[in-house]
Amino acid sequence: MTLFALDVPTDRFNHATIREVGLRDGLQSLSQVLPTPHKIEWLQAAYDAGQREIEVGSFVPARLLPQLADTAEVLAFAKSLPGLTASVLVPNLKGAERAIECKADVVLLPLSVSHAHSLANLRKTPDEVVKEIERIVAARDAAGSNTLIEVGLSTAFGCPLQGQVKAEEVIRLMQAVLDVGVDRVGIADTVGYADPAMVSRLFQQALPIAGGKLNCGHFHDTRGLGLANVYAAMLCGVTRFDASLAGIGGCPHAPGASGNVATEDLAFMLQSMGVSTGQNLLQLLELRKKLAQWLGDEAVHGTLWKAGLPKTMTELSQ
Amino acid sequence: MTLFALDVPTDRFNHATIREVGLRDGLQSLSQVLPTPHKIEWLQAAYDAGQREIEVGSFVPARLLPQLADTAEVLAFAKSLPGLTASVLVPNLKGAERAIECKADVVLLPLSVSHAHSLANLRKTPDEVVKEIERIVAARDAAGSNTLIEVGLSTAFGCPLQGQVKAEEVIRLMQAVLDVGVDRVGIADTVGYADPAMVSRLFQQALPIAGGKLNCGHFHDTRGLGLANVYAAMLCGVTRFDASLAGIGGCPHAPGASGNVATEDLAFMLQSMGVSTGQNLLQLLELRKKLAQWLGDEAVHGTLWKAGLPKTMTELSQ
Repeated sequence: MTLFALDVPTDRFNHATIREVGLRDGLQSLSQVLPTPHKIEWLQAAYDAGQREIEVGSFVPARLLPQLADTAEVLAFAKSLPGLTASVLVPNLKGAERAIECKADVVLLPLSVSHAHSLANLRKTPDEVVKEIERIVAARDAAGSNTLIEVGLSTAFGCPLQGQVKAEEVIRLMQAVLDVGVDRVGIADTVGYADPAMVSRLFQQALPIAGGKLNCGHFHDTRGLGLANVYAAMLCGVTRFDASLAGIGGCPHAPGASGNVATEDLAFMLQSMGVSTGQNLLQLLELRKKLAQWLGDEAVHGTLWKAGLPKTMTELSQ
Repeated sequence: MTLFALDVPTDRFNHATIREVGLRDGLQSLSQVLPTPHKIEWLQAAYDAGQREIEVGSFVPARLLPQLADTAEVLAFAKSLPGLTASVLVPNLKGAERAIECKADVVLLPLSVSHAHSLANLRKTPDEVVKEIERIVAARDAAGSNTLIEVGLSTAFGCPLQGQVKAEEVIRLMQAVLDVGVDRVGIADTVGYADPAMVSRLFQQALPIAGGKLNCGHFHDTRGLGLANVYAAMLCGVTRFDASLAGIGGCPHAPGASGNVATEDLAFMLQSMGVSTGQNLLQLLELRKKLAQWLGDEAVHGTLWKAGLPKTMTELSQ
């Protein structure tokens, strides 16, 4: 195991941003379909709790993901909330064009670093996906759109199909998408294979290359290491993370396995550390309760809700 | 938030020790009583899975903790397993004398740093407990015993009764028990109030004082931060941790809240990081399954078991 001598300016850590991805990454993995009015209610309550970055859905054919068929409607509502940055996941140029038309603030493109996962997920090799991303950047520019283009380097720590994924391949593809002009990149442990040492190594390789464009650490809690991995990334200087309320999501091949790190647990960790997130923990816990009622206990995860906030945390918001 | 420039010799991290505390800290918090034959089966399977440090019970009056009334018998079996270090928790001199008679390898004494918790738990102030510990060291020495005396500084990060616990008080009491001659000290987040920044700050204060006698990081996963806290302590140089199989334990006042970090999750994290623990993950998962059958799903926690080991982890033991 290699540990690094860290020299991180402490003032970078007064604030961190949590992007809520439950409405896309979370709901996408569940068999049930959350009705649009519940999604609208969720969005409003998340906004009221202080969330200002939310991934609201995905522009994919409804037959593939009926859970997200109402993305245009949900996005339109998100756009009505002042100051909210709404991200939408798209798999290809066609989806991106729709997201740009609908004025999504951010178009998120997954790029599986695992060759096998990329073929299974998008029927394209990673390098073919890079070509598609180049076309998407050109389409955005041609449209004179302000939509930001963010690439999530998924399966960056390994994949159930291929097994090992090399760090060099993550870095090569990150460089390739930066070269074609994307605005942001993120690194994603899509299946919960990462540990804090792997995270520390990879982010310290990636940061000097991507700089401020390395926008996001996206960690799944599939094997319990999600928050430890967030902390490892923070020590490298990362201050933007994805999370899903109640840790919803997961993998259809691993029943009961959790999804992204739970938003409320992550917000609690950061706030306890003195890192503001702008999110109100009590309101998040209230919203989590509602979500658990909508989805049923099978679909929800997370830990904080069981014990509640510690007595020591008298400042309950921000 | 303060982050520290770390300068940790990497060779300290080839190996870490996990002490299993499920048989004491875990079972003690459950209302049900695990029958002695099951405890013996658990111990044998844990030993076969590579565990070499186990807290086997507590010498307290059976009317107070019927769950641990068979500690003498369980300890006797533990002593029959070659190379196993058996710890026993005791609340006072009387319990310590019994543990020394029964040739426990380690006597564990909890010292609540929280004044309110100490009074509630042992009806003594922390400084009165220090006096009792001094008597215990004297009794051990008078008996010519090899039993090691370890003090666990509990509620070191806060407590539901008192709220805030000051780091200076942790350090003062640590110095006090070192001064009366204890062999080891540990720092315990008894109720899951710690975050990685707090852990980093406190362990970096404690290590220069206690040196190699700072034996243990004891973290509860009550609010999901257990493994992140372990990682933070590791970065300070700590390589010994308590954990309970299936994360059993918790707090009677927070139904459903988990106990210590789950042994199998912690062993997975460490092994994935390239830090050997001597424990076989598949055997731990098998034993966890058995424990879940004995105790019922309400009592067990943890995450790894849901998804299983990643494909990338081809080396399944050590």
